[in-house]
Amino acid sequence: MPSSNSGLTIGIDLGGTKIRAAVVDRDGRVIGSHLIGTDVAGGPEKVLADILDSVRGGLGTDLSAIEAIGVGVAGQVDPASGLVRSSPNLKWESFPFGERLSTALDIPVVIDNDVQVATWGEWQHGAGRGVDDLLVIFVGTGVGGGAVTGGRLLTGRSGLAGEMGHVTIVAGGRQCTCPNQGCLEAYVGGWAIAERAVEAMLANPDAGRGLLEWAKGEEITARLVGELAATGDPLATDIMDRTGQYLGAGLVGLIHVFEPARVVFGGGVIEGSPDLVHTVESIVRANAIPAYTYDLEFVRSELGTDAGVIGSASLALERVVSRRRQL
Amino acid sequence: MPSSNSGLTIGIDLGGTKIRAAVVDRDGRVIGSHLIGTDVAGGPEKVLADILDSVRGGLGTDLSAIEAIGVGVAGQVDPASGLVRSSPNLKWESFPFGERLSTALDIPVVIDNDVQVATWGEWQHGAGRGVDDLLVIFVGTGVGGGAVTGGRLLTGRSGLAGEMGHVTIVAGGRQCTCPNQGCLEAYVGGWAIAERAVEAMLANPDAGRGLLEWAKGEEITARLVGELAATGDPLATDIMDRTGQYLGAGLVGLIHVFEPARVVFGGGVIEGSPDLVHTVESIVRANAIPAYTYDLEFVRSELGTDAGVIGSASLALERVVSRRRQL
Repeated sequence: MPSSNSGLTIGIDLGGTKIRAAVVDRDGRVIGSHLIGTDVAGGPEKVLADILDSVRGGLGTDLSAIEAIGVGVAGQVDPASGLVRSSPNLKWESFPFGERLSTALDIPVVIDNDVQVATWGEWQHGAGRGVDDLLVIFVGTGVGGGAVTGGRLLTGRSGLAGEMGHVTIVAGGRQCTCPNQGCLEAYVGGWAIAERAVEAMLANPDAGRGLLEWAKGEEITARLVGELAATGDPLATDIMDRTGQYLGAGLVGLIHVFEPARVVFGGGVIEGSPDLVHTVESIVRANAIPAYTYDLEFVRSELGTDAGVIGSASLALERVVSRRRQL
Repeated sequence: MPSSNSGLTIGIDLGGTKIRAAVVDRDGRVIGSHLIGTDVAGGPEKVLADILDSVRGGLGTDLSAIEAIGVGVAGQVDPASGLVRSSPNLKWESFPFGERLSTALDIPVVIDNDVQVATWGEWQHGAGRGVDDLLVIFVGTGVGGGAVTGGRLLTGRSGLAGEMGHVTIVAGGRQCTCPNQGCLEAYVGGWAIAERAVEAMLANPDAGRGLLEWAKGEEITARLVGELAATGDPLATDIMDRTGQYLGAGLVGLIHVFEPARVVFGGGVIEGSPDLVHTVESIVRANAIPAYTYDLEFVRSELGTDAGVIGSASLALERVVSRRRQL
């Protein structure tokens, strides 16, 4: 097992469509990276083998200098044991991924949920630097997030805390992908924006003509709705305005719960419609209890799609170094 | 300044109608207590003088054996400086209550928000004992709460975190007493239950006759609605059923955010309608993501109206002892 103090770690962002591995230094800089597709159909053994190939070969790094490997997994994981409990995206159930990877490479492996590691990344090396109370919201196809409270990552009883997308914002409202109705994600997640847009088109075909033409026969997506809203189309603009209002309503509550110093917004929907952050900020400033917002900061993610690899690498370094200190 | 290790502290529950002071031992037992009314009209100096009288005389305790005094204040406080920033109930703005009390008695004083200290009390000596991840919800006239995450009280950037009553559960819904619309409190707080009942009576006077008679010319309150619901009156039952559904909707979200091991429910509305806890539990088990609830516990507060004095006393002991350790 390597005992160097190189500060070099490997971060792996393990998603349902692609896997990115990167060598990251102690300052959170990506030194090199390697991208492969995720062979979900091949099952966990095939994915593990592909990752081993990527780390041993594709990355082109000397593994003896690597202090630890961090992995952010799209799914529910048990950070203590390295078990991936359940990942709908990967179609895995109870796969001891951390242990298998660590044994194969003889390097300590730290795994956590993809959104938790991205939160850690933004906190340590991105837009969340320097504050002890931080809220991070990623709005992509799904809506996830994380929180730092009193200088510590919020984990919950077993590492599942931080499902900010699954707070109820409309009791009895739209069915979510989770068993609940009216979740924040069921209104502002990419899939929900698309669903709401299609419903609006069906309810008012005249107003929906712009979006129908914009889509050129392809599936309606949140990205298309955002693009069309930027051109001033009334239906798309209305959908995105309401998206901002729903996101604002959810954020008001989360800010009352956490009283953070800063909120970081990331994810594909935010990247596609960055004005959402301003909409949310003005709603929160108007609707939250004033003491909670007077110097609250609203910023966009700095790490973007690197948040996963930087966060998992940095979290792995932190945990391995703190374990060493305890020995 | 006393330097004994008696483990005795005084807890003070400072509310807008009454003030309770109690001597509490290190195991959270109330040794003696004293209750006075709050002279809000007399202003902060009069209230401070009354508290000094209560502590020096009414409590009948030897102050030289008291290690610290804890105060839970109904309002926004700055625990670090002892400043009461704002208390609508007391009609105080920026009063340095902690410093004034500590100087007058020459005993260290720790102040915090009333709901934060009650959360601490339930965690240390009540229904929240033994878990590191705890959610506490008090449903009274208002709705407050607190959280313990990873073995620490959630405080937020400046001690204001934990306003669980002010999460949005109906975007654009009922106006809250805070600037937001659709807060949990605006549906399940005692004032909101009464408001919803009156609206239901006005909308359907026939169905409302039972409640009108039950109130015997007095104001409609949540307590009356709860009592009448227990007799089977359809309108009151419907109001309380919906109250449980709203509370459940809010809790689903908070459980996804915190992943606690246990939820403690307290406050007057819960005491009056304890079945609400079962309603909420069944809603949460049906609607939350299953991994969050498989061994989640739903329990009622154990300390009841003692939570404030026990919590503030116990928090004061903890903070003073930990300060001593740092010296």
